Amino acid sequence: MITSSTNSQIKNLLQLKKKAKERNRQDVFLVEGIKMFREVPRERLQKVYVSNSFYNNTDHARELENCEYEVVSDPVFEAVSDTKTPQGILCVIRQFHYDFSDLTRGEAPLCLALENLQDPGNLGTIFRTAEGAGVTGILLSANCVDLYNPKVIRSTMGSVYRMPFYYTDDLRGALRQWQQQGISLYAAHLQGKNTYDQENYGKPSAFLIGNESQGLTKETADLADCYIRIPMSGQVESLNAAVAAAVLMYEARRQRS
Amino acid sequence: MITSSTNSQIKNLLQLKKKAKERNRQDVFLVEGIKMFREVPRERLQKVYVSNSFYNNTDHARELENCEYEVVSDPVFEAVSDTKTPQGILCVIRQFHYDFSDLTRGEAPLCLALENLQDPGNLGTIFRTAEGAGVTGILLSANCVDLYNPKVIRSTMGSVYRMPFYYTDDLRGALRQWQQQGISLYAAHLQGKNTYDQENYGKPSAFLIGNESQGLTKETADLADCYIRIPMSGQVESLNAAVAAAVLMYEARRQRS
Repeated sequence: MITSSTNSQIKNLLQLKKKAKERNRQDVFLVEGIKMFREVPRERLQKVYVSNSFYNNTDHARELENCEYEVVSDPVFEAVSDTKTPQGILCVIRQFHYDFSDLTRGEAPLCLALENLQDPGNLGTIFRTAEGAGVTGILLSANCVDLYNPKVIRSTMGSVYRMPFYYTDDLRGALRQWQQQGISLYAAHLQGKNTYDQENYGKPSAFLIGNESQGLTKETADLADCYIRIPMSGQVESLNAAVAAAVLMYEARRQRS
Repeated sequence: MITSSTNSQIKNLLQLKKKAKERNRQDVFLVEGIKMFREVPRERLQKVYVSNSFYNNTDHARELENCEYEVVSDPVFEAVSDTKTPQGILCVIRQFHYDFSDLTRGEAPLCLALENLQDPGNLGTIFRTAEGAGVTGILLSANCVDLYNPKVIRSTMGSVYRMPFYYTDDLRGALRQWQQQGISLYAAHLQGKNTYDQENYGKPSAFLIGNESQGLTKETADLADCYIRIPMSGQVESLNAAVAAAVLMYEARRQRS
């Protein structure tokens, strides 16, 4: 059992929790909690760390069979955990590496493109909602928050394991490629002439979602085939980015069912 | 200018930031940021605190005319602020006191009932989305997170000023009253036979939204006139509470427009 927070494995976990650079260098990320452990594709699971009290539960110990795991004293586990009330299980998982073409599988792809999204909770929630809505893949500009940030991972509720995604330095170049493939680009935009429910998303479609406070850059919005407006009552000027994305994705799903 | 964090006004602001009990006793709450300041109904504005550097901006000083305000040194302001990069303006606002009947104004009320909602960001986002979707009022069970929690307030983006709401110790009693007024209750529920877009929300309607991890209690779900299901692809078991509420509210809005 690891009982010291100066143990080299513990020090490495703290680095992986805090530093995107270190996660990328080692090509791994961390997930916490029993649900995230159960859903992880086994071939990606590199190592599991459990707290002593988690391990002393017989049911839990059984679940760890065939995993490479290490028991950690409760206080040390708490220091490593990213949550206030840790469940007692933390996994090191190998990062995903999709191709750009993985985002648009199937006959009528439904995609998202996120530009400079900054809030970890928003990004995670968008992944979770996207899986629920049947989105085929998510494109992210390089200046979006890191998907492997522990707060993002937690909000995905496991969708990070299943939703193809791709970070790009050239968002507009990637969007032009989608257009050449026949994917229509819809920009959620206050200047949209049509409301979002007046367009047809049955054909290959992608929604462009911008930064929480600035929205889409003009250059990216200019690429869109169509501006769509989410109508808002009262004095509301915009919706939360994850909410706007959800309203659009579920309208597409509604039309497709 | 206040330069000491032991100043009695500063000590009181810290209490108001942290303690719901103190907010309720003084019948006030705090808001931060220039947008929240500009949108506040003037008759509710009790006092404004600005940081020294905020105040030294001439445009800002002009906006403070006719307000009772106090200048606070930058370091003391930072200690009082709830955000990492404070905008430099914080207001003490008088709390709202709606009647239960305020939630259902108009010919075809569209309401929300929230049971034991715990996440501050979710609650604030729900208020913001609700105003955008044209919801008439929000009912909250007494065990929901405090609306006047600074994190909730921030996520409402000002909708807290305009959306009627009512906390109740007797959620089920209140829901029965709505039913007697002819309001149909729809529970977002995994066991719904119909998907959410197969029902008609043009008539007086209310959506019941449950706790983030447990969902609705059985007793409350049992009251619903109809269970509705939000279809989910992949391995998604549920949506984020604010996202689920948004999908339902915007479907109602779509049908009503």
